Amino acid sequence: MLLPNLRVVLVETSHPGNIGAAARAMKNMGASELVLVAPERYPDPAASARAAGADDVLTAARVVATLPEALAGCACAFGASARPRHIVAEVMDARTAASRIAPMLTAGETCALVFGRERTGLTNAEMAYCTQFVHIPTHPGFSSLNVAAAVQVLCYEVRVALLALQESGEAPAPFDRLAAHDDMEQFYAHLEQVLIEIGFHDPQRPRHLMRRLRRLFARAAVEQNELAILRGVLSAVQGGKQMRRTDAQLTQISGEVPNS
Amino acid sequence: MLLPNLRVVLVETSHPGNIGAAARAMKNMGASELVLVAPERYPDPAASARAAGADDVLTAARVVATLPEALAGCACAFGASARPRHIVAEVMDARTAASRIAPMLTAGETCALVFGRERTGLTNAEMAYCTQFVHIPTHPGFSSLNVAAAVQVLCYEVRVALLALQESGEAPAPFDRLAAHDDMEQFYAHLEQVLIEIGFHDPQRPRHLMRRLRRLFARAAVEQNELAILRGVLSAVQGGKQMRRTDAQLTQISGEVPNS
Repeated sequence: MLLPNLRVVLVETSHPGNIGAAARAMKNMGASELVLVAPERYPDPAASARAAGADDVLTAARVVATLPEALAGCACAFGASARPRHIVAEVMDARTAASRIAPMLTAGETCALVFGRERTGLTNAEMAYCTQFVHIPTHPGFSSLNVAAAVQVLCYEVRVALLALQESGEAPAPFDRLAAHDDMEQFYAHLEQVLIEIGFHDPQRPRHLMRRLRRLFARAAVEQNELAILRGVLSAVQGGKQMRRTDAQLTQISGEVPNS
Repeated sequence: MLLPNLRVVLVETSHPGNIGAAARAMKNMGASELVLVAPERYPDPAASARAAGADDVLTAARVVATLPEALAGCACAFGASARPRHIVAEVMDARTAASRIAPMLTAGETCALVFGRERTGLTNAEMAYCTQFVHIPTHPGFSSLNVAAAVQVLCYEVRVALLALQESGEAPAPFDRLAAHDDMEQFYAHLEQVLIEIGFHDPQRPRHLMRRLRRLFARAAVEQNELAILRGVLSAVQGGKQMRRTDAQLTQISGEVPNS
């Protein structure tokens, strides 16, 4: 059984050996789509050595500059983090995450597993792009897994969940389809534009406004139909704003002082 | 939560890096007892580098010459094998194995996870020392996990099973206590001695007799009370044999030709 819709994203991995070991772990579990965000050294002989036969996964890996690029086309992005300092979204254990991911993969949705840097994990800005967080139960005193070991455990859990789904013979339980990454990005762009238009947001002095709003919506795990509502609200605000503007312009024309 | 009774046994590991990575994987999951059977290179800087903070596990590792030495004191030994060529015992998947191991650990029994060489796994003779086999579900076309990755997945499964046991608050389900490794070894020694005494077995021309019998009993996963019965049978045979001997000796004394 292959896992064609599972995407593994490694963010700024330092050691090329870990990239190779991750590729091997993926292939062992039937996964093949590897995306590398700004890897420190890649390609590298150490990556190929540790891939140990998963060279095809390694060769097909895409290298991109930023996490949002890596997540294009994904319905969800599960961030793997030993220590989510600022929890921006739902945190679940590996088995629960796999039980959520398996039916989405079966339904043809692309799901990403996102792994941060060896020492420092994901930045807050990167965490804001994850829709959920996944935690591998560990001994509290020594909780940081090697990145390839984490890839191994999570891909294993997804494989086992998919096998269980297949064996049950049941249609996957209906799930609330989360808004796709790309659609959320369009929403954030729309939201920022509206906030500028209504004078609430100055892009020259952002003061983390957009990041905070991203966190809020990521934590909410916005569903597709909810996103449609939010976009509708934004458009309605713009419509009203344009109407108000027109009022203001009319006021200007009539010689009165505009108050907006 | 620590896993004090879980023992990880690595047999003739070639790459010291894998030993270090296995130590790290163990410590991440709360396990600490590592036994190395005739490692190719150990200690080695590569092992320490990959241990990445699990140096305590590595330093405490015992090095022994043979698998039976590594298994001394164990109630059970689960062999991890991608391809059990000659299945000598029950084979179960990683989750099922963990669900069997967790209550035994809780009851204070020592359980071993046995991992073979990187390229060739366990020999048939080594497999005969395992009481059960555990299989990690993999993609059929690429089924051989890195040894440290296999340690990671199995220790993870044992940890999750133990956590579930703790959370359930239930006393672990009673299990049929398997005969301990040491007791089985004494049984095999006793069995061989009896087979010699009754003239069935010539230790100079063993022709795999003992290995075949080991396989049979390993497959049966002999329980403690069953072993007591088997030992009783062996003693009874010896008693009878001694009696027959005595008969024969008496016959000799009386001048007749002994028939035994």
